[in-house]
Amino acid sequence: MESVLIAIGGNALYDKKSGNNLSPTMVTEVCRRIVEVVQSGYLPVITFGNGPQVGNLLDMAETSARLFETPVTLDTCVSWTQGEIGYWLTRELTKQLLEAGLHKPIMAINTLVEVNPDDPAFQKPSKPVGKFIDAEEAQRLYEERGWIVGPDANRGYRRLVPSPRPLRILEADPIQHLIQHEFIVMCCGGGGIPVYLKDGVFQGIEAVIDKDFTSCLLAKTLNIENLIICTEVENVYLNFGKPDQMALRRLSLSEAEQYQQEGHFGAGSMGPKVAAMIDYVRHGGKRAFITSLEKVVEALAGKAGTEIHAAVSV
Amino acid sequence: MESVLIAIGGNALYDKKSGNNLSPTMVTEVCRRIVEVVQSGYLPVITFGNGPQVGNLLDMAETSARLFETPVTLDTCVSWTQGEIGYWLTRELTKQLLEAGLHKPIMAINTLVEVNPDDPAFQKPSKPVGKFIDAEEAQRLYEERGWIVGPDANRGYRRLVPSPRPLRILEADPIQHLIQHEFIVMCCGGGGIPVYLKDGVFQGIEAVIDKDFTSCLLAKTLNIENLIICTEVENVYLNFGKPDQMALRRLSLSEAEQYQQEGHFGAGSMGPKVAAMIDYVRHGGKRAFITSLEKVVEALAGKAGTEIHAAVSV
Repeated sequence: MESVLIAIGGNALYDKKSGNNLSPTMVTEVCRRIVEVVQSGYLPVITFGNGPQVGNLLDMAETSARLFETPVTLDTCVSWTQGEIGYWLTRELTKQLLEAGLHKPIMAINTLVEVNPDDPAFQKPSKPVGKFIDAEEAQRLYEERGWIVGPDANRGYRRLVPSPRPLRILEADPIQHLIQHEFIVMCCGGGGIPVYLKDGVFQGIEAVIDKDFTSCLLAKTLNIENLIICTEVENVYLNFGKPDQMALRRLSLSEAEQYQQEGHFGAGSMGPKVAAMIDYVRHGGKRAFITSLEKVVEALAGKAGTEIHAAVSV
Repeated sequence: MESVLIAIGGNALYDKKSGNNLSPTMVTEVCRRIVEVVQSGYLPVITFGNGPQVGNLLDMAETSARLFETPVTLDTCVSWTQGEIGYWLTRELTKQLLEAGLHKPIMAINTLVEVNPDDPAFQKPSKPVGKFIDAEEAQRLYEERGWIVGPDANRGYRRLVPSPRPLRILEADPIQHLIQHEFIVMCCGGGGIPVYLKDGVFQGIEAVIDKDFTSCLLAKTLNIENLIICTEVENVYLNFGKPDQMALRRLSLSEAEQYQQEGHFGAGSMGPKVAAMIDYVRHGGKRAFITSLEKVVEALAGKAGTEIHAAVSV
C-alpha cells in the first residue's frame, strides 16, 4: 500500500471564532478528508501543526505561574498540544473509520525532534503562535510580559518564538515499523517536541519547529512515497494576487527549482513550503503536493493542487 | 522475551516540594529502574498515573478560562498529562538506554479508554487530584469554585473527581503489535483519556480513570505475563501499622482472595490495588506484584515485594 504523508496546519483545526484550541467541526472535516484518502487506496501518515494552540497554552502556563515553582517551558507546552490534538483526532477518526467500515488501527504518538541549540533561529524568533492581537495589545504584552511580537500575514500581530530546523526524529524507527504494518500514525505534532543533546543528556529547548520541515524530514527518513502540505489555497501561484496570477499544476524538480531561484515564492508563506517539497523530491521523494485539505484526494489523482514530481528517467 | 507491565504512580514523578508537575530527579530514578528491568531480560510496558499533574493542569485551565470561550474539560487535561509525562519519560529513557548500550526503540502513545457514562462513580467523585490543601482552603475552593474536596490519606484535603471503571482500551491492537516486536511502549497515561460512545460518536467525559485498573485491563487484554503495581511501600501487609503487622510475600490466588474477603486491605489504599492484581491473575495473568519502584527487579526474581501467582496445576 502506497503511503502519503499529509501535513495539516494548526489553523485547520483551530476554532478562530471562539479561541478554543480545537473546533469540533474542523476536526470532523479534517478526519473526513483522511478517511477519503484511505478509501482511495493510500495509507495516510498524519502530521499536524500547533501554532494557535501552543500559543494559547504557553499564555495559560505563564498566567498560572503561581502554580509552579519553575515556569513551564515551551517544549512542555508543545507536548501538551501533541496530547490534546492527538486525542481529538484519534477520537473523531476512530468513529469515522468505523462508520466507513474501515478496520484500520490508528494511534497518535509523542514525537521528540532533535535541533541544534546554535541554530541561528534562536537569535531571531520567527514562528507566530497564539491569537492575533492588535498593535496596542502587542505593545502592552511586549512591555508587561516581554513577548516578542511581529506582524503576521496582514491580519494583525502575533507572538513570535524561535523555529530551528529539525535534525532527527527520535521515534523514526517505531513510526516506520507502524507504517510498514499499515497502522495509521499521527505524529510529529507541532513539528515535534524540540530537544538537544548536552553532555549526553537530552534537554528540552524553547522553540516551535516548523511542521512542514519536520514532515519533509520524516518523509525523507522513512521513504514515504507522497508528501502533501495542506494550505488554505488549492495551488501555488506565480504572481500571486496580481492580475496575471497563474496556478502551477505539475512541475518537474528542475522547473520548481528554477521558479524558486527566480524568487517567485514569498519568504514567509509559500517559500518555505516549496523549499520543503523540493528538498523532499531531491532526496528521493516521488511526488510532493501543495493543495487545500478538500483537494487532497483529487491531487493524488493528478486532478488538482500543485505537484512537484521526480524526473522520469527515459 | 517475557513482558512486564509496570504501573508507576503520578506521585513517583511529581515534585512535591516545588509543585512542578515533574521532578527531573524522580524521572531519572524511574527511568533507572526501567533500564534495570530491561537489563534483567524483561520487556517493560510502562503505564503511569497523573493525579497531582492533572489536578494542576485542571486548576490552570480553570484560572485561565478567559482564554477560551468553552471551558477546557478534564478529559483534555488528561490528554495534556499524557503528552507531558510521555515526553519527559521518553527524553530521559532514550538517554539512559543509550548510555547502557541497549538499542531498544521506545515510544509514548496517546491512549483513549472507553467508560460507561452511567458508571455510579460519576455520582460520587473519589479520585484525589492536584495538590494537598488545608481544611480552610478546601472550604474556600468549595465555595468559590465549586470544587468537591475530601480528606486524603491523613495528609490534608484534595480535590476529588469521578473515577469510572475502564472498559476498553482503544489502542490495544497497536500496543500489542509494538510489544510483540519488542518496542518499549509507554501508554495508558493517567489511566487513559476517558471517552464514551454516544449515538455512534466518541465523546470525552470528565473523569480520571484509576491507572491500576487500566493497567490490569491492558495486561489482561494483551496477555502480558507479569504485572507490577508500584507503591511507596515494599509489600502488602496484614494488620498494617499495628504491632503485629506482617509483610505478605508470595500468595496463591486463593490465599489472596481469602485475605481480601476477610477485609485485610484498606478500601482507599491497598484494597483496589490487590483487587486489580486478583482480577488479573484470575483472568490468566501469571504473576502480579505490589512493591516499591526500587524493588521491581528483585520482585521479579522472587526476592522482594508481594506476589500473587496463578495456581500451579500438579
